[in-house]
Amino acid sequence: MRDKLESELLAEGRRLAARAGELLTASELTLSVAESSTGGLLSALITDVPGSSAHFAGALVPYSYESHEGTLGVGHALLEAHGAVSEETAREMATHARAMMSTDYALSVAGIAGPSGGTPAKPVGLTFVALADERAVLCERHIWSGDRIENRLRSALAALTLLIETLQRRR
Amino acid sequence: MRDKLESELLAEGRRLAARAGELLTASELTLSVAESSTGGLLSALITDVPGSSAHFAGALVPYSYESHEGTLGVGHALLEAHGAVSEETAREMATHARAMMSTDYALSVAGIAGPSGGTPAKPVGLTFVALADERAVLCERHIWSGDRIENRLRSALAALTLLIETLQRRR
Repeated sequence: MRDKLESELLAEGRRLAARAGELLTASELTLSVAESSTGGLLSALITDVPGSSAHFAGALVPYSYESHEGTLGVGHALLEAHGAVSEETAREMATHARAMMSTDYALSVAGIAGPSGGTPAKPVGLTFVALADERAVLCERHIWSGDRIENRLRSALAALTLLIETLQRRR
Repeated sequence: MRDKLESELLAEGRRLAARAGELLTASELTLSVAESSTGGLLSALITDVPGSSAHFAGALVPYSYESHEGTLGVGHALLEAHGAVSEETAREMATHARAMMSTDYALSVAGIAGPSGGTPAKPVGLTFVALADERAVLCERHIWSGDRIENRLRSALAALTLLIETLQRRR
């Protein structure tokens, strides 16, 4: 990806993170994150915004298959049945992060950033983004077509957008 | 911070992450991370490198004071005595991440990225970077003088540099 596009997507991510932070703070709501394919990027964008510790509790980044089970508590049976990149796992990651860090909302990202790791059923770019609150877990499916860096940025931006849209509907 | 400097520091971070990954993989060693002030950035740089799941287990990002205790298991007494930004906490974060994710090495970062949060005793930019292995925990103290984004990038680069230097001495 060109540096210029990366700079633009980073700036857009910080803008979205700041907007999400305003909405959370205005309603005294808190957020946590569990992210695998974005590997810390979503959390980094959220905490690029000064003052984010007021609403952001923290993140879990399970990157190896083993740490999905160890750190995040996603069940072995669920991982075996659906894989680390699946709607079921993304939903469970969000649910678990929300419970573990006792927040009002939790975002999760699970995907295949590339360049390797794709299969016919789960191509490179396939990404699930989920948002858990006290009532339900929303989950979106995306397929990005950029390189690894771009796919990760677009996944993080999609997660922040899902959060903002949900917070705006809540008002 | 200027976009150009950010792009340069990001590129340097990825170069260091790739080099650390090569050294880890060559010795079949694994890595985990616990990072507070960098908020996911160190983990994001490590996982920007394709194939990093071969050596990288994952990260814990305790951002609120509460999640230091909840997610990371840094003891309440230690936090009370030394604060979240201290050599003691940085050492405990690395030790805990290493045990929790069962890795050979664990890096931690604890600092005050700014612009607020500084005190005379702990100014903005103060950052502790620690590396735990099976024998000991190394800890470095830095004081950065950039803005929030730059301070976070320099903290992540310092952590990766400490890891590389340690791995090179090991060979």
